[in-house]
Amino acid sequence: MTSRAIALAARPSGFPTEDDFRLIEETLAEPAEGEVLVRIHYLSVDPYMRGRMNDARSYADPVGIGQVMVGSAVGRVEKSRFDGLTEGDWVECYPGWREYAVVAGRSCRKLDPSLAPVSTALGILGMPGMTAYFGLLEIGQPKEGETVVVSGAAGAVGSVVGQIAKIAGCRAVGIAGSDEKVAWIRSLGFDAGFNYKTETDYVGAVRKAAPGGVDVYFDNVGGAISDAVIRCIKPFARISICGQISQYNLEKPEMGPRMMPILLVRQARAQGFLVFQFADRYAEGRKRMAGWLREGKLQYREQFVDGLDNAPLAFLDMLRGGNIGKQLVRVAAA
Amino acid sequence: MTSRAIALAARPSGFPTEDDFRLIEETLAEPAEGEVLVRIHYLSVDPYMRGRMNDARSYADPVGIGQVMVGSAVGRVEKSRFDGLTEGDWVECYPGWREYAVVAGRSCRKLDPSLAPVSTALGILGMPGMTAYFGLLEIGQPKEGETVVVSGAAGAVGSVVGQIAKIAGCRAVGIAGSDEKVAWIRSLGFDAGFNYKTETDYVGAVRKAAPGGVDVYFDNVGGAISDAVIRCIKPFARISICGQISQYNLEKPEMGPRMMPILLVRQARAQGFLVFQFADRYAEGRKRMAGWLREGKLQYREQFVDGLDNAPLAFLDMLRGGNIGKQLVRVAAA
Repeated sequence: MTSRAIALAARPSGFPTEDDFRLIEETLAEPAEGEVLVRIHYLSVDPYMRGRMNDARSYADPVGIGQVMVGSAVGRVEKSRFDGLTEGDWVECYPGWREYAVVAGRSCRKLDPSLAPVSTALGILGMPGMTAYFGLLEIGQPKEGETVVVSGAAGAVGSVVGQIAKIAGCRAVGIAGSDEKVAWIRSLGFDAGFNYKTETDYVGAVRKAAPGGVDVYFDNVGGAISDAVIRCIKPFARISICGQISQYNLEKPEMGPRMMPILLVRQARAQGFLVFQFADRYAEGRKRMAGWLREGKLQYREQFVDGLDNAPLAFLDMLRGGNIGKQLVRVAAA
Repeated sequence: MTSRAIALAARPSGFPTEDDFRLIEETLAEPAEGEVLVRIHYLSVDPYMRGRMNDARSYADPVGIGQVMVGSAVGRVEKSRFDGLTEGDWVECYPGWREYAVVAGRSCRKLDPSLAPVSTALGILGMPGMTAYFGLLEIGQPKEGETVVVSGAAGAVGSVVGQIAKIAGCRAVGIAGSDEKVAWIRSLGFDAGFNYKTETDYVGAVRKAAPGGVDVYFDNVGGAISDAVIRCIKPFARISICGQISQYNLEKPEMGPRMMPILLVRQARAQGFLVFQFADRYAEGRKRMAGWLREGKLQYREQFVDGLDNAPLAFLDMLRGGNIGKQLVRVAAA
């Protein structure tokens, strides 16, 4: 059988365009022993994928020109030669931007569709949710009564960070890119927030939203927004560096004010992390997050684009901040 | 009685000059109950004092114009109205740049001159030694077999950092500002080092000296040297931010390449500290350091300038990197 897929056509310099992607048709082999054929229903588009488009070895290898874009997805098993899965099972897997994929059965995580909509396995109960959970609680170490500021606050990760901060007894402040986003995060329980696109004085806006200073900064964006937040950190603050999306599409790296002198005098810590370092604790994180969801302490929002053909558009729109909550591509009707 | 002292005459913009200081004469009151009169023998000049000359509240208040420069010193008690000290006792205290001072007895630390030369209370067994000890072991968390890079490696702190790194079973690499300094740190047991003043390719020099990458970076200098070292950090590296001396004398803050994206992909941590956060553990640190000194595992070097009048020169020379090891001002002959 054949499947459509989206391959990397060219390496972008600066902001990617649709021309950097190409719709291709692949021939799929029958599943071998231990493999399953999955029909993809939901594809995830995430900021990290921009890094994979560059020809630079980072923590993971780049996607080659002509190769299918990487990414996780939720789908349904159509054929199984793996003992733990049978036809009709819902799974989360890492097949790339495809409509169908043959993957190793042990690389799939079986989902229980009665617990939560299966698409949440790519959002609040998936990688973005785990990123928020461990990145805030383990790297940021918030304590009750402290102030947590998160940038990219209306995204799949940021929106969860602020809510977990509230659960942890903190003041939650969000920075986002539209009034609608700020209104949404306020509706989630964030104590304050501002729209950086209409704000000219970032430092003043952070001071107003976090009058006592910033104890924990969960950084999704980097750049000038982070420069301002870091100016407002308190002694012994923790900066959890999760993403730097403002930097991903620069044609050449930008210069910025030096931040180490601030870390020094404030005795503060900045720590980068990739969620994979917590892989052996995902079950614990998912269990607590699912509990908070059931108790109504966590809310989430998903935004869908239909059709594999539109995956590049959905990805580019997400890079531009077009999404509120988790951006997904609905590849097949459920 | 009267005493000579050095006061701040003007706030420097950029690199300070002798004109920013003024020799003054003070009238000293008799010690009140609980106080002691100390004759200063050794004054410490340290990089942090540059920060006190600025009119900016940092972690400590600035020195006011006309006020005596702050600083620690070692001296001998001449009169005591404090139960714990008697005439002739050697003490470390925080009197500022003076020849005589009346200070609170409980602010003095009594020294045992039979254990080590009393001047070491300002160096390897004093604040710089504690800074190296806790800044490396607690903030840097070196593990056996790892590579530790230290900048300002021939200074009072850096030279000790590399030696403790060796004691901890690490490869020690030092960056310093002259061939003589590099030769000296090699003689202390550093495995490698380079002179940044004659090196044009800092990244290449770090890679050569730390071929497997950098696990711990103990940063005394900041700026372009640190940019290069941080480019060479390994996954899960720790950066202990102790000083940023390259930045202290800039007329306006300089821009630099952004470092947070590197911390992110390497899952690394940068943490600033002031040694005072470990104050309740100084006794422990001093005991271990003294033990290593006795066992010959630690060496140190002191450099003396004679006369209180020359304290500004000694300070300025130290800021320029003129010292090897600990820079002291010998105010009175011992």
